[in-house]
Amino acid sequence: MSETPDSAVRTYIDTHRATFLDDLGEWLRIPSVSADPDHAPDVRRSAEWLAAKLKETGFPTTAIWETDGAPAVYAHWPSDDADAPTVLVYGHHDVQPASVADGWHTDPFEPHIHENRLYARGAADDKGQVFFHTLGLRAHLHTTGRTSPAVHLKLLIEGEEESGSPHFRALVEEHAAQLAADAVIVSDTGMWSETTPTVCTGMRGLVECEIELHGPDQDIHSGSFGGAVPNPATAAARLVAALHDDHARVTVPGFYDGIVPLTDAERTLLAELPFDEAEWLRSAKSHATHGEAGYSTLERIWARPTAEVNGIAGGYQGAGGKTIVPTSAVVKLSFRLVAGQDPQRIENTLRDWIPGRLPDGIRHTVTFSGSTRPCLTPLDHPALQAVTRSMSRAFGRPVGHTREGGSGPAADLQDVLDAPVLFLGISVPSDGWHAPNEKVELDLLLKGVETTAHLWEDLAANWSTPHTPRTPS
Amino acid sequence: MSETPDSAVRTYIDTHRATFLDDLGEWLRIPSVSADPDHAPDVRRSAEWLAAKLKETGFPTTAIWETDGAPAVYAHWPSDDADAPTVLVYGHHDVQPASVADGWHTDPFEPHIHENRLYARGAADDKGQVFFHTLGLRAHLHTTGRTSPAVHLKLLIEGEEESGSPHFRALVEEHAAQLAADAVIVSDTGMWSETTPTVCTGMRGLVECEIELHGPDQDIHSGSFGGAVPNPATAAARLVAALHDDHARVTVPGFYDGIVPLTDAERTLLAELPFDEAEWLRSAKSHATHGEAGYSTLERIWARPTAEVNGIAGGYQGAGGKTIVPTSAVVKLSFRLVAGQDPQRIENTLRDWIPGRLPDGIRHTVTFSGSTRPCLTPLDHPALQAVTRSMSRAFGRPVGHTREGGSGPAADLQDVLDAPVLFLGISVPSDGWHAPNEKVELDLLLKGVETTAHLWEDLAANWSTPHTPRTPS
Repeated sequence: MSETPDSAVRTYIDTHRATFLDDLGEWLRIPSVSADPDHAPDVRRSAEWLAAKLKETGFPTTAIWETDGAPAVYAHWPSDDADAPTVLVYGHHDVQPASVADGWHTDPFEPHIHENRLYARGAADDKGQVFFHTLGLRAHLHTTGRTSPAVHLKLLIEGEEESGSPHFRALVEEHAAQLAADAVIVSDTGMWSETTPTVCTGMRGLVECEIELHGPDQDIHSGSFGGAVPNPATAAARLVAALHDDHARVTVPGFYDGIVPLTDAERTLLAELPFDEAEWLRSAKSHATHGEAGYSTLERIWARPTAEVNGIAGGYQGAGGKTIVPTSAVVKLSFRLVAGQDPQRIENTLRDWIPGRLPDGIRHTVTFSGSTRPCLTPLDHPALQAVTRSMSRAFGRPVGHTREGGSGPAADLQDVLDAPVLFLGISVPSDGWHAPNEKVELDLLLKGVETTAHLWEDLAANWSTPHTPRTPS
Repeated sequence: MSETPDSAVRTYIDTHRATFLDDLGEWLRIPSVSADPDHAPDVRRSAEWLAAKLKETGFPTTAIWETDGAPAVYAHWPSDDADAPTVLVYGHHDVQPASVADGWHTDPFEPHIHENRLYARGAADDKGQVFFHTLGLRAHLHTTGRTSPAVHLKLLIEGEEESGSPHFRALVEEHAAQLAADAVIVSDTGMWSETTPTVCTGMRGLVECEIELHGPDQDIHSGSFGGAVPNPATAAARLVAALHDDHARVTVPGFYDGIVPLTDAERTLLAELPFDEAEWLRSAKSHATHGEAGYSTLERIWARPTAEVNGIAGGYQGAGGKTIVPTSAVVKLSFRLVAGQDPQRIENTLRDWIPGRLPDGIRHTVTFSGSTRPCLTPLDHPALQAVTRSMSRAFGRPVGHTREGGSGPAADLQDVLDAPVLFLGISVPSDGWHAPNEKVELDLLLKGVETTAHLWEDLAANWSTPHTPRTPS
């Protein structure tokens, strides 16, 4: 009985699994903690290790790309099929700090396997998920008999993600021509659960601002003056309160303009996820759900924008009371955005909205910090369908769809390269990102290998859109 | 040409002016700073000095009353007319801290006279205003030929007013029988200006509370959870915003119930004051007026209740942003009350109101601290009319009416003794209470003497209400 393509892939992976895990273990031993300057040589060693391993995997081009911070790794393996689509894989090789003192049961930089789980800092976030691409690519080449990938394959593995990617946008802009791609595949996320494989189709964007309100030139006596002059703490509260109506809908005019609506198909897919709201509330450490009327909890966190107070302060903060009208108040707000909302337009909308909400005599300043665009890949996008199909073959079951409520540097790739971003991750919530005893489930890690072993051929075969080399924006 | 009663008083005051100022200077040299434990012996010395001086003035009963803090001085001089009304004068003999380092041009405890102003800590607040009662009383006796005052006269001069009068209520309650009076005259306030003598007819009351709101059990990620759980900072803002409607009227149901309305006569009197709103705004260090619709600025601060935010805090307070849903928020509120508003009822009203304003999942605690009742003497009260008349004779011009927006221990006297409180003060805004270079205008100080020289006889003659010895509540 001849092997099917899927069983051929599995056989190849089984054969190479031990070496793959040994190699990954070697990488995990390098404590590439980007937040700690003492580990800067380790971060560089991690980049060099990866570049060498990608060269060994067969990438004809590998490079260390310097930034004003930690180095990134770039690799490129063009397809022999000139017309094939170009795919850029994103991940990161730096890790969060970790030490036994934090509660690790074993040395976080001495990987060990226990009950089919690989424990080490970076096992899931993100070295494991970067590394499954290497064995997946080799399985793809071996089982198809190809000597080059079915797509033009590029990798960009940054070294500062755990430090907030401060130089990532500049890096992408600098190398935009080399990074040009038809799609970006981010392997730095997770899926619903061990038993519910999912693909993430988008992340929310982010606009952050700080609003300072100034009333009296100093704190003044609330008996002598209270009730006859505007109070900036009251004004701050009224401004914040005015952000939402009684249905928790944002009231700022134009805020929802242009939003790509949730399709019925996507709402159905989200509703099919085995969502346990009580369990979710426990993970949110919250005591009730609360949000925009007309949307489910998952829709609220994944597919609807928000206006959130991250901090508010004004007047007396000490013990007991102090009968003053305070001189000033400050509000820190963040707005999560969804596809169709442009951060710059939202900023302008807010700038225009604030003054009309303040009484005479309250002066204000508003300061916006860096924003992040939302990203969303439509369910019918052929690249997304290829990812879903490949994952479904690997897992042997249907694959659901999720979104991500947070915001990330993937949006920079989408923006600069003008390419859709897809999220292919096999991590599960119990993996303990940023926490002690981070692990990756070995079975899932190898499903990641298997998914990418199928993906490139599926993508090349089913993405009929003629490839147009893109001029990055 | 025989002297009129008024010119006889003036002659007496002129004759004794030098001694009066020498004596006052001696008292002002005692640094009776109640806030500084090192000055506790000085506060006691100040009390003893005053008691001795009141004995010398002729009071048959003088006493040092101990408290759990600094001592108070009590004096009593019954009238020979048994049916005369009983009046209790309130003031304080302690002073605010002061040192040359704060910006005094001369030693704050070495009084000196310059351009007809007496500079010293306590010159206006409150030793000068307590002391004018001594010479005024002697002028009263001398010019009427009486051997006892026309009213049963009591003095209570506390020693902790500048430290918040922590033991005053207990002191008054302990000695309520001895302090029983038909009216209380507080000489610890001011008047409109050098050229506009006024009598204050009331003070606002005060209720203070702190509301803590609790949302998630810890700060949580605003990307992962934002938009689907209640945010306590948002809830705090919405609670504060809900305190007022768009006309700056307090919305808490029942808040305005029972308020003694401003009469047309009082509104007219207030409107007649030479109020310069621009100048007032400068003193408020504010950039616009803002308050309850339908009321003038003076009405707002004197005769209308308020709901003021003294402090608000929640979430991230540092530099930059932090994308969290905060675990908690706290609001410090104070409510100024006017006659007819009972602090306990207002507290109950607020306790009842808060829960309905909070979303599910936001737990709260509310803590009320000590409250102060409002006090108000009607314009037609005979004692108030006597004060106004006496002051008018001293100043040689009509006397206006004000109120005080703040709240003070006078309310304890009103409450415990069940007696109306009248405010007889000659200080002006430029006197610099609590500030460097405190002074009192000598001309005004002597007008205070002159007012009290007339007051007791006027009160006895015109307060026809039969005297009923009061059983204090």
